[in-house]
Amino acid sequence: MNKIEHIGIAVKSLEVSNEIFAKLFGAPHYKEEEVASEGVKTSFFMNGPNKIELLEATNPESPIAKFIEKKGEGIHHIAFDVTDIVSEIERLKKEGFVVLNEQPKKGADNKLVAFLHPKSTNGVLIELCQEIK
Amino acid sequence: MNKIEHIGIAVKSLEVSNEIFAKLFGAPHYKEEEVASEGVKTSFFMNGPNKIELLEATNPESPIAKFIEKKGEGIHHIAFDVTDIVSEIERLKKEGFVVLNEQPKKGADNKLVAFLHPKSTNGVLIELCQEIK
Repeated sequence: MNKIEHIGIAVKSLEVSNEIFAKLFGAPHYKEEEVASEGVKTSFFMNGPNKIELLEATNPESPIAKFIEKKGEGIHHIAFDVTDIVSEIERLKKEGFVVLNEQPKKGADNKLVAFLHPKSTNGVLIELCQEIK
Repeated sequence: MNKIEHIGIAVKSLEVSNEIFAKLFGAPHYKEEEVASEGVKTSFFMNGPNKIELLEATNPESPIAKFIEKKGEGIHHIAFDVTDIVSEIERLKKEGFVVLNEQPKKGADNKLVAFLHPKSTNGVLIELCQEIK
């Protein structure tokens, strides 16, 4: 794991939250992207070597809609940049972590992604992500 | 704001969680530190330019004990590295953020720290931190 690639934050409204985070960072988001398969619209902010990803649900069945219903707006996941997601998944499975999708899938921002179940990681939803070359 | 300095994760037991995160990163924590004023014991893991801080409460009145009681173990705060914490606090107050301690205080890991109230930041507890030279 090379660094924190991004932190994902569940929000009710990208429009409202884009303004809040633009004030926080003193710079606006640099892109928006919809990931239809996950039922989310996302926006991204740069912060030095790291990013912040805001996530708004696009339908009531979206994991983000369910998260907000249960816990309210807030931090949803931490994503770590990895060089080789397939070998990291193998390594982490051997260490006893529960991988939610053993086959990496296409996520936002041109990444292959996989998630670790929070029950194996102290209640923290962890994403592994590898840039697609 | 220069980068994500660290992510703070509330845990019930540093001893148990130090093992989990050592497996996750493939490397052990590099230090432990108690911050008596906050009622916490902490441990730190390096991850490239970023850190993960685990926080265990040392008494039932600790903010970490209350957080775990209410929400369970999980991500507690995001800390951003700033060059000049005093001017950042001023800037953020002008932008409408609620600063919990307008005078920076001494935190873990040789930092001056200040917190923004989650009600002004989409439910995310944000820490500003400046290294003490």
